[in-house]
Amino acid sequence: LTEAPRAIDKDRVDSTLEKIREKLEAGDIQDAIEILTRLHPADLADAFTELDEQEQSALLPRLDLQSAADLMEELQDQAAADFAESLPTDLLADLLDEMQPDEAADVLGDISRQRAAQALSEMEDLDEVLPLLGHEDETAGGRMTTSFVGLLPDSTAQQAIEFLRHRDPEAETPYYLYVIDHDGQLTGVLGLRELVIAPPNATISSIMDPQVFHVDVKADQEEAARIMARYDLAGLPVVDEAGKMVGVITYDDLFDVLEEEATEDIYRLANVPSAELSLDSPIHVAIRQRLPWLFLNTFTALFASWVISNFEPVLAQVAVLAVFQSVVAALGGNAATQSLAIMVRAIALGTVELQEVWRTLVKEALTGLLQGVTIGASVGLGVFLWKGNPVLGIILGVALIGNMLIAVIVGTLIPLVLRWLNQDPALASSVLVTAVTDSFGFALFLGLAALFLPYLR
Amino acid sequence: LTEAPRAIDKDRVDSTLEKIREKLEAGDIQDAIEILTRLHPADLADAFTELDEQEQSALLPRLDLQSAADLMEELQDQAAADFAESLPTDLLADLLDEMQPDEAADVLGDISRQRAAQALSEMEDLDEVLPLLGHEDETAGGRMTTSFVGLLPDSTAQQAIEFLRHRDPEAETPYYLYVIDHDGQLTGVLGLRELVIAPPNATISSIMDPQVFHVDVKADQEEAARIMARYDLAGLPVVDEAGKMVGVITYDDLFDVLEEEATEDIYRLANVPSAELSLDSPIHVAIRQRLPWLFLNTFTALFASWVISNFEPVLAQVAVLAVFQSVVAALGGNAATQSLAIMVRAIALGTVELQEVWRTLVKEALTGLLQGVTIGASVGLGVFLWKGNPVLGIILGVALIGNMLIAVIVGTLIPLVLRWLNQDPALASSVLVTAVTDSFGFALFLGLAALFLPYLR
Repeated sequence: LTEAPRAIDKDRVDSTLEKIREKLEAGDIQDAIEILTRLHPADLADAFTELDEQEQSALLPRLDLQSAADLMEELQDQAAADFAESLPTDLLADLLDEMQPDEAADVLGDISRQRAAQALSEMEDLDEVLPLLGHEDETAGGRMTTSFVGLLPDSTAQQAIEFLRHRDPEAETPYYLYVIDHDGQLTGVLGLRELVIAPPNATISSIMDPQVFHVDVKADQEEAARIMARYDLAGLPVVDEAGKMVGVITYDDLFDVLEEEATEDIYRLANVPSAELSLDSPIHVAIRQRLPWLFLNTFTALFASWVISNFEPVLAQVAVLAVFQSVVAALGGNAATQSLAIMVRAIALGTVELQEVWRTLVKEALTGLLQGVTIGASVGLGVFLWKGNPVLGIILGVALIGNMLIAVIVGTLIPLVLRWLNQDPALASSVLVTAVTDSFGFALFLGLAALFLPYLR
Repeated sequence: LTEAPRAIDKDRVDSTLEKIREKLEAGDIQDAIEILTRLHPADLADAFTELDEQEQSALLPRLDLQSAADLMEELQDQAAADFAESLPTDLLADLLDEMQPDEAADVLGDISRQRAAQALSEMEDLDEVLPLLGHEDETAGGRMTTSFVGLLPDSTAQQAIEFLRHRDPEAETPYYLYVIDHDGQLTGVLGLRELVIAPPNATISSIMDPQVFHVDVKADQEEAARIMARYDLAGLPVVDEAGKMVGVITYDDLFDVLEEEATEDIYRLANVPSAELSLDSPIHVAIRQRLPWLFLNTFTALFASWVISNFEPVLAQVAVLAVFQSVVAALGGNAATQSLAIMVRAIALGTVELQEVWRTLVKEALTGLLQGVTIGASVGLGVFLWKGNPVLGIILGVALIGNMLIAVIVGTLIPLVLRWLNQDPALASSVLVTAVTDSFGFALFLGLAALFLPYLR
């Protein structure tokens, strides 16, 4: 009866893949199907996408409906849409009926309107999917599923357990039961465990917790994520404007949201606007996303060039300035990037309050100043020893102190200002921040050099 | 009976804080306590940390043990350790007994050894905490709790429900029940829901799922996170070398791990080595973390300066080169950062396979080349129009193409090499990557200029 407990194993998927290919080559399609469907749906999807088109189309018609639905649920958005577009309409409708309603709605939103309309017209189970179609992807409504267990407050624990016995065992979120009155209003929550250990004739309203965290159907998925992470919730009910419960977001949705939001922040800080971009994106999509930021950087870099060009006569007289101007820019840029990362993360995790901005800013400024003095003194001394000119060393040191001070202030303030403007603080990417530190650094270093030109020649 | 459903509300914490302060000023400590303990533990901890020391010490002795334990569980690591150090030993021991064993173990690991030994000697409930003390923070053992529900395979559903009725209702992970044989071996898992709907005299072994995902107690927390996120698990059992179940990691731990790992990646890419750093860190801690990377950057920047210094004679003759050398460096740096972010994220989410490296590299190189040609041609043309020198424009354009090509290759390869060396790919921070793009960019641009010097003067 008992098998060895199962651990994750990439090799296992690979060796399974080999076995499937062997069976396919030998013409044993049924055996191949059996090996495939014994996998966890997540592994099944991985293995299936590794197969080539010919192998896929040999297997697909023989896959049972439930496995095919599992497969579609686990595929990446684009892969699922491509797969859906390739199927005959009646099979697609059957699959969508079999899938979790939130996953089915996602697929319907990603395929062509015409194809979605065809599939909807042939689907049987529209009640759960239709309400999900109108929501934006990144809202609570776009993340929720309509498949949840609702109980009436005046029923008994025994009745509730009977009700559970007769419900679809595939339904999601079996652990929190939501108490909904006759008007559809969310009025309480009950853990399955509390239900199990309650006296059989206790009413639901006497054992439920009347305080239920919830989120508005139109709220950003980040807000839902913050509530669930803060209060350690495995499920969060979603309500409409009238307080009617319309769905639930579950912990596994939150795993996805947390990963997506982290990708978005990392990408934006690195000048990549869309979190959808991956190594698998076609080149033209990658370029469409990445090139605009590089063009923006072209303008900021040419602006910095224009700053330098104002000092061309100075540079013509003291060429060694060209050697060190970039040190000032580079250290400013990296010091700003450090402040930026810490501030963006603090905002994302909700650990900074706008009232504390001044205290934070003063602290960062002090950090920047102390770092600037340390680095400025070291580099100044080193360059004096290298080039033998004390004034060059002093000017470089002072410019480093000034630019590293400005750097931390800019790195701290830009995300705060973006936040205050209700924009994503992570848009304060390295392009924008280094635009300031480069230009300011060049101006400060070359400006000081122009002032003390006689001592540099 | 029913109250309005509860949504997250920062303002609510703030207005509660005001009420508590009013009560304290009026001397109504009991009222203040009542307001405080009516909050969710997460809000309670937030409100409490906002109070000043005097207010805290007025409230603390009157807080009931459970609320104080809740408070300690919700405090940040450092705050919890400070709080623990400030308490009398007997009270600390009582609190630790009351806390979840994993949280208690974390506190014991964060306070001084002497203080921890004192507290342990006065604690009553050591069975659950002691096994947790030996594990590294970022391993599965360091994340798990020992508080889980284990069932014997030959007991019946009815017996299991009776057992649940008599267990501590505070125990974590009430939703998965783990089936453990007489030798302590993990042999199956059972959802609470499956237990509820099973016939009362069915044996546990007949209704359990014998395939259980699990993780080794010494595995990195990231591995546990990947399994839970991949297979949408609300709980993951942790086993020792002998296959004995020693604990469980729950979905709320995973929320924390996902946030921590994202912070770590964002920080490392931005040259901040420790994810522990926050806006609240003291300045000397911030500088100790951030300064070493800025010193590393000093060396890479001075190396780039040395590259430039080899072209001082050229720069002395054509000062305008100093104006544009930084454009080449800046665009290379930002193009590399884009590749870096996409690659680091792909590795973190496990969506890249080492076998696909070549395909990925060729695709990135093509992207870099196309972007380089677009930007190089635009900038080259622009600078020709600005400065009137076609050769300057061509040299700048060619250097941009070359550096942006190298940039994407470096941004893609460095994280892969780090991964291959079993290091964190996110250590390929902007400092390291721009070290390459700066030096190479300067050398390429100034080298080309030296070659075509007669056309530039």
